[in-house]
Amino acid sequence: MAHLNSHYLKLKAGYLFPEINRRVRAFTDANPEAAKRLIRCGIGDVTEPLPAAVRKAMHSAVDELGERETFRGYGPEQGYEFIRKAIAENDYRSRGLDIADDEIFVSDGSKCDCANILDILGDANRIAVMNPVYPVYVDTNVMAGHTGEADDEGIYSGLVYLACTAENGFMPDVPSEKVDVIYLCSPNNPTGAVATRERLEKWVRYALENDAIILYDAAYEAYITEPGVPRSIYEIPGARKCAIEFRSFSKNGGFTGVRCAFTVLPKDIECQTANGDKKSLHPLWNRRFSTKFNGVSFVTQRAAEALYTDEGKAEVAALVSHYMGNAKILREAASASGLSVFGGVNAPYIWVRGPEGATSWEIFDKVLNEANIVVTPGSGFGSEGEGYFRISAFNSRSNAEEAARRFIALKW
Amino acid sequence: MAHLNSHYLKLKAGYLFPEINRRVRAFTDANPEAAKRLIRCGIGDVTEPLPAAVRKAMHSAVDELGERETFRGYGPEQGYEFIRKAIAENDYRSRGLDIADDEIFVSDGSKCDCANILDILGDANRIAVMNPVYPVYVDTNVMAGHTGEADDEGIYSGLVYLACTAENGFMPDVPSEKVDVIYLCSPNNPTGAVATRERLEKWVRYALENDAIILYDAAYEAYITEPGVPRSIYEIPGARKCAIEFRSFSKNGGFTGVRCAFTVLPKDIECQTANGDKKSLHPLWNRRFSTKFNGVSFVTQRAAEALYTDEGKAEVAALVSHYMGNAKILREAASASGLSVFGGVNAPYIWVRGPEGATSWEIFDKVLNEANIVVTPGSGFGSEGEGYFRISAFNSRSNAEEAARRFIALKW
Repeated sequence: MAHLNSHYLKLKAGYLFPEINRRVRAFTDANPEAAKRLIRCGIGDVTEPLPAAVRKAMHSAVDELGERETFRGYGPEQGYEFIRKAIAENDYRSRGLDIADDEIFVSDGSKCDCANILDILGDANRIAVMNPVYPVYVDTNVMAGHTGEADDEGIYSGLVYLACTAENGFMPDVPSEKVDVIYLCSPNNPTGAVATRERLEKWVRYALENDAIILYDAAYEAYITEPGVPRSIYEIPGARKCAIEFRSFSKNGGFTGVRCAFTVLPKDIECQTANGDKKSLHPLWNRRFSTKFNGVSFVTQRAAEALYTDEGKAEVAALVSHYMGNAKILREAASASGLSVFGGVNAPYIWVRGPEGATSWEIFDKVLNEANIVVTPGSGFGSEGEGYFRISAFNSRSNAEEAARRFIALKW
Repeated sequence: MAHLNSHYLKLKAGYLFPEINRRVRAFTDANPEAAKRLIRCGIGDVTEPLPAAVRKAMHSAVDELGERETFRGYGPEQGYEFIRKAIAENDYRSRGLDIADDEIFVSDGSKCDCANILDILGDANRIAVMNPVYPVYVDTNVMAGHTGEADDEGIYSGLVYLACTAENGFMPDVPSEKVDVIYLCSPNNPTGAVATRERLEKWVRYALENDAIILYDAAYEAYITEPGVPRSIYEIPGARKCAIEFRSFSKNGGFTGVRCAFTVLPKDIECQTANGDKKSLHPLWNRRFSTKFNGVSFVTQRAAEALYTDEGKAEVAALVSHYMGNAKILREAASASGLSVFGGVNAPYIWVRGPEGATSWEIFDKVLNEANIVVTPGSGFGSEGEGYFRISAFNSRSNAEEAARRFIALKW
């Protein structure tokens, strides 16, 4: 009989967001009046319209496909030269970072990239993740058979968890043990923390000394507001030898429904083969794209290109400024309510420590019932998130302001 | 040191199309005048403009994303209800086939689907492929570690190859040995053959008796012209228990640059777990979409929906009729040149047996040099393709007619 991939059976049943939805539905069913004033600060999805420059480019691309002379079918699986070049030039080379066009791989989402990268890595790697953590890093390793079973707190055996706490600024130090692959996310989802240059230098040094690879998720790079905070891991000397960077247009250009992201995989990165030889990783990622992917929609690639025009850059800046304005309002409100507040300065997420002794779900229920606001319970991101909750700044200004008023009015 | 996936190193170096390009470039460099009259009948990519109904829907979707009230961010990873329902209703239920909306999974390409399906299957399966074969089936199994090394003819140990020959109508009979997973492609790329109802009934019976799974690639379904040829494997009783169907909008709607496809994974399919229990496969595929994918671009989903409107259906019919008109012209020309010709009746590919003793690459060179036409050498699809070549009907009518004149004039 055909076999299924039994590793999938170790996965926890997509617990977090379905459970949030269940509780919200129960609340709104029981409180139809309060339901009308519900404000969702849970999920990390953009709310504002797609930039005009992007829409113009998409309209024009659709028209191009309507003429035989300008019609485009299959494009290069790794992305058209026009977008690979725009990315490498604008996000890297113009900032003094040495990245070639063909080290950019254009995809339909960072989630996919973070998941698919495991395809080209071996099964013998010792893998480290942050805790709390974006669940995709963990779940894809479970699916690939890199873990044992999970315990009651959702901690899988076989992974190395790096605790992110108020003490380490929610950005872990290098471990004392040796690991081969490290997922780092900065600006961080869910905590909103960022890795300083010093911290990143230490990680790159660790990776070089241990021949490890850093999977650097910088999907929220656009939200960095403080000078001196690295926007790319390639700002750190040596990173070209050990770091793969993930970027996305979801949160800067508002592409969560349009779908475009990219990875940077420098040709300098080497890994060992089963017999201990060293080989470059770049040809494997290139081959994966050719064999398992057919490239991003041409219309979407034109959309992404438009973000690099002057008009597009101005619109992205306005979007980021809008959401970060919300973040400031929500951050100050949560703080004014008497709680300890983190993040929200270089990220659209505010990470809030609940009152002593309260669990994340207890806080979730209280905020839902008393303020009619949906937040995300921190424990949903890992055991170290227990007692915290996440507020998303992705909202209209009026919703953010009203949510802020209600947070301030909350009695903890 | 971090490990890479050493199975990738077993892959042949993307041999076919790069080698075609190399030979074409050498020819055009040496013959600049002949280069001007080159006609490409090689790659299977559409050439005609995207249907007007599709473009209208895409323009309107882009506009929707430009208004806060109608903006859409993340959609359901498996596809919006509007498109899952349109597919299930039009392609299945209206033809009397029992497929539920949530058995449809909308993706960005059949290549991705055929590749990704291995994620949810175990590593212990015995896998059968056709020979000649769409290389993605083989290469993704190599990447997943399901094979040993390839021999000189490109045959990988560990796979069961089912010979497709003129004797069996290029559609193999069930094997005498037991296999767990079978890739069937009908209408076939590259041979243009189709599975008859009787042949498919035999395969479904084999799968049910052996608890095997059929991966049924029907990406070219729209090109079936003969009545009685099954358009879906679910026309065969019992297939809901053993068959996963892959479909695409690439070749009917001309979406090779727009990117949309789908799989049908019925809830009745069960596989065994590592400890021998039976489990439904549907939740695993659903979970894979949730964890490793963020859904197809909203604009693309609206584009696909438009193919199911009356206007869209009429435009698809016109496109298919155009390409099949080419196929008839090319088929008759190749036949008139004195060769044995297959396919091209229910598929946009014509599969031609070259003159006795000539290799596929010898024929390729002759056609390129003497007729200035690029075809695809059959041996590039597997050892059983040796001596054959593939003509693609994806072209303008004038190109097809001119290519036909040149084929007829060829002296073999």
